Amino acid sequence: MTDPQRIWTAAAVIIGDEILSGRTHDKNIAQIATWLQVQGIRLTEVRVIADDMDAIAEAVNTLRAKHDYLFTTGGIGPTHDDITVDAVAAALGIEVIIHPEARAMLEDYYETRGGLNEGRLRMARVPAGSDLIPNRYTGAPGIRLGNLFLMAGVPHITAGMLDGLTGELEGGAPLLSEVIGSWVPESEVAILLRDVEQAHEGCQIGSYPFFREGRSGANFVIRSTDPDVLQSCVDTLCEGLGELGWDFTPGGI
Amino acid sequence: MTDPQRIWTAAAVIIGDEILSGRTHDKNIAQIATWLQVQGIRLTEVRVIADDMDAIAEAVNTLRAKHDYLFTTGGIGPTHDDITVDAVAAALGIEVIIHPEARAMLEDYYETRGGLNEGRLRMARVPAGSDLIPNRYTGAPGIRLGNLFLMAGVPHITAGMLDGLTGELEGGAPLLSEVIGSWVPESEVAILLRDVEQAHEGCQIGSYPFFREGRSGANFVIRSTDPDVLQSCVDTLCEGLGELGWDFTPGGI
Repeated sequence: MTDPQRIWTAAAVIIGDEILSGRTHDKNIAQIATWLQVQGIRLTEVRVIADDMDAIAEAVNTLRAKHDYLFTTGGIGPTHDDITVDAVAAALGIEVIIHPEARAMLEDYYETRGGLNEGRLRMARVPAGSDLIPNRYTGAPGIRLGNLFLMAGVPHITAGMLDGLTGELEGGAPLLSEVIGSWVPESEVAILLRDVEQAHEGCQIGSYPFFREGRSGANFVIRSTDPDVLQSCVDTLCEGLGELGWDFTPGGI
Repeated sequence: MTDPQRIWTAAAVIIGDEILSGRTHDKNIAQIATWLQVQGIRLTEVRVIADDMDAIAEAVNTLRAKHDYLFTTGGIGPTHDDITVDAVAAALGIEVIIHPEARAMLEDYYETRGGLNEGRLRMARVPAGSDLIPNRYTGAPGIRLGNLFLMAGVPHITAGMLDGLTGELEGGAPLLSEVIGSWVPESEVAILLRDVEQAHEGCQIGSYPFFREGRSGANFVIRSTDPDVLQSCVDTLCEGLGELGWDFTPGGI
C-alpha cells in the first residue's frame, strides 16, 4: 500500500509561441491545476516555452525526472509548427510511429470531411509505446506515455482530454482549503497571519489582497490535508481577526 | 553601437501558490508579453512556481544567466508568504537591507492609513544595491537590480510598474506580425503553410485553429523583424489560399 501521507506532484509544460507573444491568454494552467487538485495531485511547477525542439526537450526531461506526472499542452495538431511529438520522442530517445488506432480514428473522423491527407496523418504520430487519450471533439487523440501526457492546446479540447483521464491517475489525500474574507488591509494583520500559520503544522495561509468599491480587503486561503488542523487554523484566524476588531466572511469576499 | 540584428530576450517567473492551485487565473504572463513586444524584447520562457525559497532561487539563477532581462511577479507584499525579496537575495548571495527611499514612500503612504507597522515595513526591504520601480497605486515600490525586476503580483499594480519601465530597457528591432484569418480547417492547408514559411527566411507562421458558428477556421499569424519579408510572406500565403479556393480575411477572423 502506498504511504497515505505521500504527496503526489505534477508539472505542466505549456507549449506555444502564441502565449509568449501575449496574443493568446493561457487558460490551460488554471484548468489543469483545478483538475489535479480533485485527483489529489499537486501542480508544483509550470513552464511556458516556445515551439522549439530544444526548449521542449529540455523542459520535458528536467520536469519528468522531478515529478510523478508531467502534462504538456499544445503542438499536437496537423501543421508544421506542431512539433511536440517529435521533440518529446527526441528527448526520450525513442522513435516516432504511426499509431494504428489513432490512424483509424482520424480516417473515421475525416471520412465525411475530405479524407486523410499528409497534415492530418501527422496527428496519428506518437512516440513508440504510447497509449491514446480520447478526444471527444475532434478526431485527433492526446497521447499518454507512462507518466507523460501530451494534450491539445485549444482549451476546450484540453478539458475533454482531462475529463477522459479523471480517476485514472493515482493521487494522495486532497489538499483541503477554506477561505476567509475580510475588509482588512492585509498589512494590518500580517503578524496575526504568520503566527496562526506557525501554530498549525502543515497548514499554509495565503493572503490575497484586493481593492474594490474604494476599500481594501483580502481573502485568506487556508490549506491543509488534515481536516481537523484546517478547522482549528480557520477558527484561530477568525478569533484573531475578531479580537483585532475586523469583521470576516467565511467563504471569502 | 549594438548590433541591429541582435535579439534581446526576457524570461518571467510567476510566483504564487494561488496560480498553481487554480484559484487565481494568471493575467501577468500576457501583459508582460505584450509590453515586452513593444520594447523590442522577446519573452522566450516563463516559469510558474510556488512561494518557496528554493524554487524561487533556482528559477532566478537559471533564467537570469540565459536572458537579457528577468521579471518576477508576486511575493513582494507585507505578509509572511511574501518571500521573493529574501529568496532572490539568497540566490544572488547578497544581503537584504531597508531601502531608505522605499521606507520614506511607505511612511508617506501609510501616514493617513494607520502608520507603518512591522508587516508594512517588510515592503521597504530590498536586496542591497537595488533601485526602486514606481508604484502609482499603493505605497510599495517594485525593485530593480541590474537586469532583474521584481514586481507585484496583483495585475493592475504590475501593469503600473511595467508602464513606469517603458522606454527604460534597451531592445532590438520589434517583431512585426500580420494575421490572416480563413474559414479553412488548418489540416487542409498544412503543407501550404509549411512551404510558405520555408520560402521566407526569418518568418514564422503560427496556425491557430478555432471552431465557431458550427464551422472550422484558423488564424495564421506571420512574424518577422523585416517588414519586406513579412509582406512577401503574407502575399504568398494569401495567393496560395486563393489558389486552393479558400477565402481569407486580412487582420484575422
